[in-house]
Amino acid sequence: MLPLKDMENFVEKNFDQAIEDLFRLIRIPTVTAKGGHNSAQAISELKRIFNELGFKTSTAETKGQPVFTAVLDSNKSKTLLFYDHYDVQPAEPFDLWTSPPFEPEIREGKIYGRGVADNKGHIISRVFAVKMLQELRGELPVNVKFVIEGEEEVSSPNLGEFVEKHHNFLFADQTSCIWEFGGKNASGFQEIWAGVKGICYVQLKTMGPKKDLHSAYGAVVKNPANHLVAALDSLRDDKTDKILIENYYDTIIPPSEELLQTISKIEKEFDEEKLKTVLGVKEFIHGLTGMEMLKKYYLSPTCTICGIWSGWQGEGGKTVLPAEAHAKLDFRLVPKQTPEDVIQKLRNHFRDHNFNVEIEWFEGYPAAFTPLTDPFVQVVEETMIEVYGHEPWIHPWSPGSGPLHLFAEIPVLSIGVGNAESNAHSPNENIEVEDFKLGQICIARLMEKMA
Amino acid sequence: MLPLKDMENFVEKNFDQAIEDLFRLIRIPTVTAKGGHNSAQAISELKRIFNELGFKTSTAETKGQPVFTAVLDSNKSKTLLFYDHYDVQPAEPFDLWTSPPFEPEIREGKIYGRGVADNKGHIISRVFAVKMLQELRGELPVNVKFVIEGEEEVSSPNLGEFVEKHHNFLFADQTSCIWEFGGKNASGFQEIWAGVKGICYVQLKTMGPKKDLHSAYGAVVKNPANHLVAALDSLRDDKTDKILIENYYDTIIPPSEELLQTISKIEKEFDEEKLKTVLGVKEFIHGLTGMEMLKKYYLSPTCTICGIWSGWQGEGGKTVLPAEAHAKLDFRLVPKQTPEDVIQKLRNHFRDHNFNVEIEWFEGYPAAFTPLTDPFVQVVEETMIEVYGHEPWIHPWSPGSGPLHLFAEIPVLSIGVGNAESNAHSPNENIEVEDFKLGQICIARLMEKMA
Repeated sequence: MLPLKDMENFVEKNFDQAIEDLFRLIRIPTVTAKGGHNSAQAISELKRIFNELGFKTSTAETKGQPVFTAVLDSNKSKTLLFYDHYDVQPAEPFDLWTSPPFEPEIREGKIYGRGVADNKGHIISRVFAVKMLQELRGELPVNVKFVIEGEEEVSSPNLGEFVEKHHNFLFADQTSCIWEFGGKNASGFQEIWAGVKGICYVQLKTMGPKKDLHSAYGAVVKNPANHLVAALDSLRDDKTDKILIENYYDTIIPPSEELLQTISKIEKEFDEEKLKTVLGVKEFIHGLTGMEMLKKYYLSPTCTICGIWSGWQGEGGKTVLPAEAHAKLDFRLVPKQTPEDVIQKLRNHFRDHNFNVEIEWFEGYPAAFTPLTDPFVQVVEETMIEVYGHEPWIHPWSPGSGPLHLFAEIPVLSIGVGNAESNAHSPNENIEVEDFKLGQICIARLMEKMA
Repeated sequence: MLPLKDMENFVEKNFDQAIEDLFRLIRIPTVTAKGGHNSAQAISELKRIFNELGFKTSTAETKGQPVFTAVLDSNKSKTLLFYDHYDVQPAEPFDLWTSPPFEPEIREGKIYGRGVADNKGHIISRVFAVKMLQELRGELPVNVKFVIEGEEEVSSPNLGEFVEKHHNFLFADQTSCIWEFGGKNASGFQEIWAGVKGICYVQLKTMGPKKDLHSAYGAVVKNPANHLVAALDSLRDDKTDKILIENYYDTIIPPSEELLQTISKIEKEFDEEKLKTVLGVKEFIHGLTGMEMLKKYYLSPTCTICGIWSGWQGEGGKTVLPAEAHAKLDFRLVPKQTPEDVIQKLRNHFRDHNFNVEIEWFEGYPAAFTPLTDPFVQVVEETMIEVYGHEPWIHPWSPGSGPLHLFAEIPVLSIGVGNAESNAHSPNENIEVEDFKLGQICIARLMEKMA
């Protein structure tokens, strides 16, 4: 094992270069949700970064954005695989950013820019962990592979086909995987996420008259905005937060004793007030607190309106009966739910309740998780205790989502350089400089411990 | 009475000049909903037009956009007052216009441009009726006054104060009023509207976390978009179209026998299929037809979502829990309802149902109408039979709205140069050239008949 001091020295010596690589990556606005026009540029940048370290890189075309892979085969028995993504969330609303989203900068110990937490900062900190071991040890103690896709923020519609095609490459014997995101929570503790919830994201549409009408016709012409509102409200009881889609909870199994104990362990350390401050809310839904709040957080499926729009949104009072209305909804799925099943139930619901709602498109994937008894959990935990000086919180899975189910045949854990105020999908996305540095050491030490 | 032939000749001879005046007015984008930055320019144009005919013009400042008035006192016993407005609806969505909204043009017998039907075409046709009588008779048979305000499309918030201040000017003895809009219906018949529904227009807002959050928090953070949807859906039963606000129908009186007879007379001539084609709908709400449809059209209050917006509206799937949500609603009011009463009931409803919805602003006015027994109705009807060659349809009131209640102490009727496909609040707003011409003759003959 390398002395921590040497590792720290490496990080300081290489800090400017790491930041330069990170900034170059952030400056490319890889917003796949808006067309993904910059994928080629991002991949060429990744190629440069990985080739310099001797990785063998390649780019696999898909029906959407290409998947970039890099492999550094040191002829070892064990392999560490990283799953990351070069695409980012849209940066709107721009005016809420203190500095422009695609012009990264460091202010008061934090690195700001769209994608720095989700997940370009992770990519670069992992790359520099590899560089560190190369420089300080001469060679790597494990084989290293990266899979960096370009469609994570749009629910990875083409990753499944890629994984199927490259199954042997990805899941070679004794491979473990570090997932894209992670970091420390509102109480300052590092976290390990052993999985993710699934997601089903849908865009809905209702149609009315062939064009916007004078709203005087509201007495006799059906309004698609009113109809959409009624349809959306029928999906979920706002008072109880219960999803009202028929048989929605059928596939969901009650949590095991073990799972409840894991959550209960988190509850002991959990700083509820801190999280409320970070999120900017006065209370959690229904005033839930403690174990009840955490159980809902981990174990509940959700039905969230991510966007809705219809008619006049400008200043003042345009009296219009809109021609159409749209909404975007996401359902976070707990284990055993599938997007296909949710869509089928949604279609049935609209049909049975006489809602004339079109599902314009949908995307998603099921939940997936690594059992906490897997030996990789212990290796990661021990590494983090050594690097960060405290026991990390271990979560059964994240309430967020990712295509982790495609990798579920090997152990997969999420750790990283983010924090509770990283604003991953919001304006002023950031990571702390200190976490960016420690993340490099943590990953390097993990590779040493794995071997 | 002037021979119709002479009147027609005048219209043809002066057509180019009338179109030039009209186009100059339309080219000024007087969208008060978006700030009303062009009012001064519109008023200066009106001044030029009216001064050329010898009107005495003046401009009354208000808290919002100024009110323009023009008077031509011929020392007659009777006065015809016109209520018009120089402001127009916003022209969005621009891409649905065949020609740009503020670059008027004539195509296939129609004049296109934002405001040509609502109501700049009316203003110019009425001005040229005055010019016609001046040229063909030497003097006018009645005194003529115009009130042209700049806030009709935003519910005339300052017209009440103006009317109060200028009461004697407006409502001199033996004054009758022609209202801003009117024209022919889908079946090709001219119409007389004897009043308007009232309106209460509100903008609503719900608040959630202090910024947009990752939608993974949907399990424990209340979503303002879901909450707004629930609040809106609680206002109106989408299946029955019944407004669910407590005591909403209390102030509404059942229609009189006379009123039902008026509607029944309309029903006999009414071409339902034609109107459906014009509106671009397959059926009316609940499949209503005949007398039931018309009763709903005239007699029902409405609750219409004119606009709604929250969260991500761009391409693809941004997984966000929005910080806030907004909606614009209009309630069309039948006689005896008032905006103030609607707002009070709305506040009570939100309070009683534990909806945390802010009313950001509201505006509106009550319904108003002229009894069909008023002698002015007969004069207008006879004039239209002579000019258009058929009996006009007489409506008790329009399902649209206007600040007519401020003028209700004198008889007020709506007739004009629009048509059922004028797209008053939609893209490709237009009037027919033929109606623009006949409208001049109709108003000129009306002045002759009044005297």
